Amino acid sequence: MSNQFFNVAVVGATGAVGQQIVRLLEERDFPVKTLKLLSSARSAGKKVLFKGSEVTVEEATPDSFAGVDIALFSAGGDISKALAPHAVRHGAVCIDNTNAYRMDPDTPLIVPEVNAHRIADHKGIIANPNCSTIQMVAALKPLQDRYGIDRIIASTYQAVSGAGNQAIEELKRQSQAVLAGEDVQPDILPVGALPVKHQIAFNAIPQIDKFQDNGYTLEEMKMVRETKKIMEDDSIKVTTTCVRIPVVYGHSESVYVELKQDADLDEVKQLLQNAPGITLVDDPSNQAYPLATEAAGQNDVFVGRLRRDLDNPRAFNMWIVSDNLLKGAAWNAVQIAEIIAAKTAVNS
Amino acid sequence: MSNQFFNVAVVGATGAVGQQIVRLLEERDFPVKTLKLLSSARSAGKKVLFKGSEVTVEEATPDSFAGVDIALFSAGGDISKALAPHAVRHGAVCIDNTNAYRMDPDTPLIVPEVNAHRIADHKGIIANPNCSTIQMVAALKPLQDRYGIDRIIASTYQAVSGAGNQAIEELKRQSQAVLAGEDVQPDILPVGALPVKHQIAFNAIPQIDKFQDNGYTLEEMKMVRETKKIMEDDSIKVTTTCVRIPVVYGHSESVYVELKQDADLDEVKQLLQNAPGITLVDDPSNQAYPLATEAAGQNDVFVGRLRRDLDNPRAFNMWIVSDNLLKGAAWNAVQIAEIIAAKTAVNS
Repeated sequence: MSNQFFNVAVVGATGAVGQQIVRLLEERDFPVKTLKLLSSARSAGKKVLFKGSEVTVEEATPDSFAGVDIALFSAGGDISKALAPHAVRHGAVCIDNTNAYRMDPDTPLIVPEVNAHRIADHKGIIANPNCSTIQMVAALKPLQDRYGIDRIIASTYQAVSGAGNQAIEELKRQSQAVLAGEDVQPDILPVGALPVKHQIAFNAIPQIDKFQDNGYTLEEMKMVRETKKIMEDDSIKVTTTCVRIPVVYGHSESVYVELKQDADLDEVKQLLQNAPGITLVDDPSNQAYPLATEAAGQNDVFVGRLRRDLDNPRAFNMWIVSDNLLKGAAWNAVQIAEIIAAKTAVNS
Repeated sequence: MSNQFFNVAVVGATGAVGQQIVRLLEERDFPVKTLKLLSSARSAGKKVLFKGSEVTVEEATPDSFAGVDIALFSAGGDISKALAPHAVRHGAVCIDNTNAYRMDPDTPLIVPEVNAHRIADHKGIIANPNCSTIQMVAALKPLQDRYGIDRIIASTYQAVSGAGNQAIEELKRQSQAVLAGEDVQPDILPVGALPVKHQIAFNAIPQIDKFQDNGYTLEEMKMVRETKKIMEDDSIKVTTTCVRIPVVYGHSESVYVELKQDADLDEVKQLLQNAPGITLVDDPSNQAYPLATEAAGQNDVFVGRLRRDLDNPRAFNMWIVSDNLLKGAAWNAVQIAEIIAAKTAVNS
């Protein structure tokens, strides 16, 4: 990677996140020399528009990465495990949006607003955190820096797009059926690979990903482990309950945070107002607070409902909303790619 | 009230809760001598079926309560404030489902599974707690009795039916519009009486009822204050975030509870399994947990996702679901009426 334009590959280019990555590479005018769109054999052959030209999607294989400088993976953990090492072998830097490498000690887990300085530690793979983790740590980082964080208790309200395009279609199909008074036949959510399915339309499902032996789901444990890794503080106590609700785009989170010292509410608001990538929407008198429908399509993390805990002077409650496909996935990945590109450009 | 059959009045009989009260009085074979259905002038004249006979809804006035033994109010706080004193003057016992008298020190605030013994303290009015409070305290009472409770942190996922029949229609209308790709014109939620409206279809609105000066909503403060009153322990710390989601029937709650002593998870489950009015649905290996769609139409409170906090050995997380119109309102009120009726029958 010695010039200022890059051979870019997107793995999982036809998925919910991959589509947004391609859109963002164009919208951000990312310095693309060539764009290779990769997918499973099933989606190969599809055509995708990029800057006015049609790009044909190819099946991803170990040899797909010859000459690729930056590979953005978003096709599931198994694909990343199988192919990212080949991409690295071919000299690419991989930005992996799956769970495959996140907790690998050799892989930096990056939210640019929080720990961009760790990007340089990579050994070929940089992991993009889980969607529900990204927006939470982005919002809490200014508080960690200023006061220290002792404990986080989060309950999530997660959009179906986090489970992919099929889940979006399922929510729409089920909603239509319920409104028409017809029976609903769930077949994707809560977890495609598990036998039991539940209705998501007009419901709230307290399961995202598989259950672990400790009674938490993998999604909940991702938030716990990834937060400690990204914040670089294993002493932060994190408790999470992850819930899927009938929203298409935009995860919302109810977050209780205990700081290590007393804090002034106005100062907390000021810190968030000045924080990169954060938009404070917090005006109760005008009923203004973040909403999934308004965060959808936006790159920022939106924070509101900021208020002091009624009993603990060191604790605050807040409502954190972001587009799970953008800051929660595609935009965070493209941000990382932009940092790599800028650094390469300077060094070249 | 000296005989075993009662002259019953339902105020707000055509509303979402009132309809369920009338249905439950019939289903439970409540000892009704006469049934008077009362409403605003707007709904007066409507006919309602009760045990095969049509009852004509009448406009509620101060004189409507002559001869009434038990009056169930569910027509908004202003109506209760205006009319409950007249019902009491006529000798009726009022069971009030609004916020009007809940924190009045002379009014018992009753969840039968928790504090039925306080019913006898009434001076004519018994208050039914807020829907989101009822299901939480019903689930936590066995833990309070066995271990003591130090702190509760709850985030709610509340159904639109809590805002009445118009909000149900609004959710359906908006959902249809969004699915058809049409514009949405919100006109009820989050709070009918406030100027700003937000889309509820495919969204999550972190506002239920009006904002208070401390940044919490009235719904959140109801849960805080009512929990302390019902549990008869002002030292319990309670923090809440109340959120409306696109569900028609059934409130869900993500609840973190810190006990006053260590507890064994299996014992906690056993306590809940044996608790009156509680159904434990907690089998992660079969993806079984409470769901709003399955709680709808049921009188019980459903509890699941029970798990130990990852850091605090005295803390547990759980998922509590109940039909907000039933245990959260109509069923709790009819339960109270049944206790009054049984006591009167014994004393007569």
